[in-house]
Amino acid sequence: MKYVVAFSGGLDSTTLLYHLRAEGHDVKALSADYGQRHGAREGRAAEEIAELLGVERRVVNLTALVEFFGRNSLSDAAVPVPAGAYSEDSMKQTTVPNRNMVLLSVGLAWAASLHFDGVAFGAHGGEYTPYPDCQPAFAEAMDKAAAVCDWRPLSVLAPFATWSKGEIVKRGAELGVPFHLTWSCYAGGETPCGVCGTCVDRAGAFKEAGMKDEG
Amino acid sequence: MKYVVAFSGGLDSTTLLYHLRAEGHDVKALSADYGQRHGAREGRAAEEIAELLGVERRVVNLTALVEFFGRNSLSDAAVPVPAGAYSEDSMKQTTVPNRNMVLLSVGLAWAASLHFDGVAFGAHGGEYTPYPDCQPAFAEAMDKAAAVCDWRPLSVLAPFATWSKGEIVKRGAELGVPFHLTWSCYAGGETPCGVCGTCVDRAGAFKEAGMKDEG
Repeated sequence: MKYVVAFSGGLDSTTLLYHLRAEGHDVKALSADYGQRHGAREGRAAEEIAELLGVERRVVNLTALVEFFGRNSLSDAAVPVPAGAYSEDSMKQTTVPNRNMVLLSVGLAWAASLHFDGVAFGAHGGEYTPYPDCQPAFAEAMDKAAAVCDWRPLSVLAPFATWSKGEIVKRGAELGVPFHLTWSCYAGGETPCGVCGTCVDRAGAFKEAGMKDEG
Repeated sequence: MKYVVAFSGGLDSTTLLYHLRAEGHDVKALSADYGQRHGAREGRAAEEIAELLGVERRVVNLTALVEFFGRNSLSDAAVPVPAGAYSEDSMKQTTVPNRNMVLLSVGLAWAASLHFDGVAFGAHGGEYTPYPDCQPAFAEAMDKAAAVCDWRPLSVLAPFATWSKGEIVKRGAELGVPFHLTWSCYAGGETPCGVCGTCVDRAGAFKEAGMKDEG
């Protein structure tokens, strides 16, 4: 099968690229620029990994959409990135509303025009980052919408939807994912801040997997 | 309730704006610029109607997405607009893949940031324009996805999903919709071409309603 993969250059979506290829699928990678403060560093990571794999990667410029997203700390430099493990409150501050549906809908448009089978994204379960649009119920609802959005049924895959982030790290290790090339931090620096929600989240995942993070 | 309305300035979405207001809802209008050849004329119609109603209207610039839509006659000047009543083939030529999901997902993002209840669009039934992403099954699937896409359940309304286009014209007439301000033609001229699928479609709707089109 052939899938467009929502690909940020982070731990989850990089492992997803490797995982789908290992299962024999053809993939193209779709990254989004919505003005995220960590965008340049994240984009470099994504480009390096896509080149390493020989996977075509396109960046969709969603900065024109930012006015519809309201204020949040990812796309608005005036809003500080909350430190510490994710809480419901800090997650709300780093939520770009409906980001995954926007990205999946563009991915499905691209998949339709490529005559691909659908789009895949790295939503996962476990105790970390329970954003609403990363839940299995959201992935399933989008899969049903994808089945009827075009002349030909498309699908939305979220193979990690019920996995913990530690399980993703373990699967990535099996597949030889170059974790040191992936990028997670939301803070916008050249090295991981170590204190934002996604840095804490990443550290927890490696701890759960019993591995050292070389990233 | 409060809804973001996908609003092109055409017959269906203009009647939808009037219909939702008549039912007591607050509305804001969302138009999309995806480089459609009839965009300037359509945008003028939409702006005039929104001003007449005193409804806030924003235009989301989706031209950065066009490369993901493949070639079609609406956004690509090199592809001719097919003449005559819609056939499956001519519809495929005028399909922007997954356009409605993209637009609804942006509308839902805006609705989430406004603390609105959801998004509405003018998909309709009947014999005209059976694009896949205008069908009741698509609208229902998107409504289910909207219910789980954000911290707060949102909804997708398509109150005309099972109406014919003639029934929309009748409802619009009851509500005093200024049909002469609406714009339907896809061909890109200053006056309706009268031969493209959407012109033929519009003429059929007025005929079905037993009314004269002053547009």
